[in-house]
Amino acid sequence: MTSREIFEQIKKKQSFLCVGLDSDVNKIPRFLYDTTDPVFAFNKEIIDATHDLTVAYKPNLAFYESMGVSGWNTLEKTVNYIRYNYPDIFIIADAKRGDIGNTSNLYAKAFFDAMDFDAVTVAPYMGEDSVKPFLTYVGKYVILLALTSNKGASDFQYVKENDERLFEKVINTSKDWGTEENMMYVVGATRAEMLQDIRKIAPKHFLLVPGVGAQGGSLAEVARNGMNEQCGLLVNSSRGIIFAGDGEDFAQKARAAATEVQQEMASLLKEGSLL
Amino acid sequence: MTSREIFEQIKKKQSFLCVGLDSDVNKIPRFLYDTTDPVFAFNKEIIDATHDLTVAYKPNLAFYESMGVSGWNTLEKTVNYIRYNYPDIFIIADAKRGDIGNTSNLYAKAFFDAMDFDAVTVAPYMGEDSVKPFLTYVGKYVILLALTSNKGASDFQYVKENDERLFEKVINTSKDWGTEENMMYVVGATRAEMLQDIRKIAPKHFLLVPGVGAQGGSLAEVARNGMNEQCGLLVNSSRGIIFAGDGEDFAQKARAAATEVQQEMASLLKEGSLL
Repeated sequence: MTSREIFEQIKKKQSFLCVGLDSDVNKIPRFLYDTTDPVFAFNKEIIDATHDLTVAYKPNLAFYESMGVSGWNTLEKTVNYIRYNYPDIFIIADAKRGDIGNTSNLYAKAFFDAMDFDAVTVAPYMGEDSVKPFLTYVGKYVILLALTSNKGASDFQYVKENDERLFEKVINTSKDWGTEENMMYVVGATRAEMLQDIRKIAPKHFLLVPGVGAQGGSLAEVARNGMNEQCGLLVNSSRGIIFAGDGEDFAQKARAAATEVQQEMASLLKEGSLL
Repeated sequence: MTSREIFEQIKKKQSFLCVGLDSDVNKIPRFLYDTTDPVFAFNKEIIDATHDLTVAYKPNLAFYESMGVSGWNTLEKTVNYIRYNYPDIFIIADAKRGDIGNTSNLYAKAFFDAMDFDAVTVAPYMGEDSVKPFLTYVGKYVILLALTSNKGASDFQYVKENDERLFEKVINTSKDWGTEENMMYVVGATRAEMLQDIRKIAPKHFLLVPGVGAQGGSLAEVARNGMNEQCGLLVNSSRGIIFAGDGEDFAQKARAAATEVQQEMASLLKEGSLL
């Protein structure tokens, strides 16, 4: 998928929402436990109820991996379900992988060949050869962790050498490994003011922004500091949408929560003269 | 497993070898393709042929994950096989995970509860809350990436603030999150001289050392710079051992390669007055 195609979806849906399918089996409605694959049943209903409001889905792999073999089955079925029914939607494997070259190459095959993800999140610590194998797939993206939204982000991501903080160095160094057509960056919404600094070094890249909602970030702040001429933002919400309800109407509740976010996004897109 | 128990194994086997089960399905002997689970058949023979020469096995998860659901089955069977037949051996999930707290918690469950690994490699970029969930399991270890052995290690790991390089800051900051009984560090053999600097800040921790063999590091240099009074080293070799042969005698060839390393390790343990 090209960045242009993502932007077309954003305009069409008046939304730059990414729904995080952090589908914790312990948090899904109990009545789904009667189905053969409760997490898939949950995902399917959430997807059907929100697909026209979101441009991306992002399963975090931990929630699937922690269920072992059956979790991988659920993940594959979920990706296939989205691809078959809603082929325009961008699908992100939130995997935070990163290993030496020949090993990253296998992860790239796992996510881009064996499964049909459009993007994978990758941790930058091991440097260029841990990232490059993902960049050889046309139309697929690495989403490199730059500035994350969690408390521990401040432990190492702000280490400063010659006035350049580590998260800035990660972007500055890595942006030449690929292009805006195969790289994006994770930038947490809890540091929305940092988006201005990041836009100075990566004006055109799409940014995946977690931390709005449950983690306290402000959508309007993110948009005002980070939006570019192609929007350039995918703002993720997970728990706030998928666990908006826990009864038989959980999917309707999820739709209502997603609609609320989408409507704020439509306003912000208009404010940025993109609609 | 306590660090004392690991050291007892090291003395008994006169070895501080970790065999990396990077069992790439494309590199295992062809005749195994006739079995129902070729990678498991390969691992089983390698394990039976080397268990008395090695104190640890380390499957790199990419090799299993890239085979999807069947790969997870193979991984589970491999861990169970080692645990049942050779219960004293330390088993490391080379996963390089690391995510926000509630998600790391799920990874910890996946590796320590659902599967019976003794340790998991974790990437430090996201800081404390991405590491702590792994530290709540008694007798289990986080092995945090500090200085890796790949070329890309120099991209970010040497970023220096106030005379402290990032890999040193990772160790200095994280060593208070746990103890020597639940944390180890990855330090690549290709930078053996750095082991002296690392021993100044982490004198007692075990270090997992990749990069000997195929990646060019020297075992003797590693031992002379990094050994402590409990040995404190697990030196990994993957391809150099498991792919030493590719015929029907591959397991014997692997044993021969492991024996060669073990014998050098026995000499180095004697040189360090640990035997």
